[in-house]
Amino acid sequence: MSSTKTESNSAAPTRFIETNGHSYAYRRFGGGSALPLILLQHFTGTLDNWDPAVTDPLSSGREVILFDNAGVGRSTGDVPVTIAAMARHAAAFLEGLGIKRCDVLGYSLGGMVALQMVQDQPSIFRRMILVGTAPRGGEDIMHLEKPSLAKRIQDPANKGYDVLRKIFFTSSAASQAAAEAFVHRISQRSDDRDPVSGPNVASAQTAAFREWEVPAGERFADLSHIPHPTLVVNGVHDEMIPVVNSYRLSENLPNAVLLTYPDAGHGSLFQYPESFTRHAAAFLSSPFESAVF
Amino acid sequence: MSSTKTESNSAAPTRFIETNGHSYAYRRFGGGSALPLILLQHFTGTLDNWDPAVTDPLSSGREVILFDNAGVGRSTGDVPVTIAAMARHAAAFLEGLGIKRCDVLGYSLGGMVALQMVQDQPSIFRRMILVGTAPRGGEDIMHLEKPSLAKRIQDPANKGYDVLRKIFFTSSAASQAAAEAFVHRISQRSDDRDPVSGPNVASAQTAAFREWEVPAGERFADLSHIPHPTLVVNGVHDEMIPVVNSYRLSENLPNAVLLTYPDAGHGSLFQYPESFTRHAAAFLSSPFESAVF
Repeated sequence: MSSTKTESNSAAPTRFIETNGHSYAYRRFGGGSALPLILLQHFTGTLDNWDPAVTDPLSSGREVILFDNAGVGRSTGDVPVTIAAMARHAAAFLEGLGIKRCDVLGYSLGGMVALQMVQDQPSIFRRMILVGTAPRGGEDIMHLEKPSLAKRIQDPANKGYDVLRKIFFTSSAASQAAAEAFVHRISQRSDDRDPVSGPNVASAQTAAFREWEVPAGERFADLSHIPHPTLVVNGVHDEMIPVVNSYRLSENLPNAVLLTYPDAGHGSLFQYPESFTRHAAAFLSSPFESAVF
Repeated sequence: MSSTKTESNSAAPTRFIETNGHSYAYRRFGGGSALPLILLQHFTGTLDNWDPAVTDPLSSGREVILFDNAGVGRSTGDVPVTIAAMARHAAAFLEGLGIKRCDVLGYSLGGMVALQMVQDQPSIFRRMILVGTAPRGGEDIMHLEKPSLAKRIQDPANKGYDVLRKIFFTSSAASQAAAEAFVHRISQRSDDRDPVSGPNVASAQTAAFREWEVPAGERFADLSHIPHPTLVVNGVHDEMIPVVNSYRLSENLPNAVLLTYPDAGHGSLFQYPESFTRHAAAFLSSPFESAVF
């Protein structure tokens, strides 16, 4: 697409592609001369969990493509229980769209899928943004059963998106104000919404986290073979996937810049969307082989 | 100064101010409406160790002030053996210049002095940039005697600035090419140069590192009381002051953004001066109370 028109995840129609024996739900909007950017979503997240304050600015100058992996939202099939299988679905989806080269933004679970995909098919990807995620063999990945998280997740006072305010943000007044703005933004879309993920999505994706926590051979050695320029982003107080995992990513990927945000948890990109999208766009726009921007 | 003329550390005259019973050597150049930025220097570094590729872009829009602490370069007195005493000299110098409010960029040893100064006189400082440095109680701070560093420092083949190429940069071809460009830049100034620091400077500053490694009370608790917006920068392969110290800074300072650079050691700001000064200038130019830029 050569249009530079910027649309919004609040309004872009959901589309479906039949490929790989599945029907995958997706949205694509924006456009421009830059490579398209595929966004890979977090635990239990659907198309509707992508914050327009993140997707929309990024869709200026490039197409942004959001995607429901198998069994999530309105995509058919079973939710895979490994990152590797999720990566195969995402690859089939890209192939179905005819996309031969793109950039990728993987958030949380989606960052793991992105890491797997660039190892499976390095030539498809140019640049990678990894937010609030962990390498294979990372530590304390999405242990929602630990007391600090469980009490917030199980609190019956948290209805709908309320739980995201508690687990994606810190308890500070500033972070909670940002949380409220975030929930307001992702609630704006009034129709053509995905169904909310149920316990079957959560349990399969949790199995995938447990498998991903097991190192394959020497811990983090796989990262040394990923030359792609990478921007790693995290909140310093992320309790779902602690920031130490971002440290290991930026230390072991040979070509990664790390950016961490203060007073922020797992949802740092949603807490500081203006800063995040400005840095992400500058990173994506760099013509150099170095991640440094 | 209201001029926006940008000068260079390759040519700016060295000046002297008599105050606090000392004569302090300094340079000031650039100008603009932003607060002046004082730069605090690394172990054994003099005015001539400030890379023009860092100082000169930062002097656009603001005055940049470089300073030799007591006993270093052409400043009189004994080199202090504590960070606290170095901070008192720097404070006296600022007072002598009549500077009541400024930003500070502290690199390595200079970052420790900056941290001490903002705790001693919080109201003088607005924003802080800390590069390749460590909080009080940090780990593995400037242990030049450890084998990995000692062999490079003691190699008789390393003359003059050659040692900086070995200890500020990594061994990669790209980093060594950046090292050569750095050494070329700091060698450009042909007269009015500082004398090179001798062993007395090194031994006193090393004593200061050893004292700074000892926590005062609960480790890193002092950082929680520093509200100043802070940008923390480090190379991920810093062997002189490992990046873990930057992690502790950005986790424990309440208002700090962390930026780390790939394939970079202690001299990350000199390896990537274009990126560093662009981010530093954006950070310094932010009108907000948050460090997020």
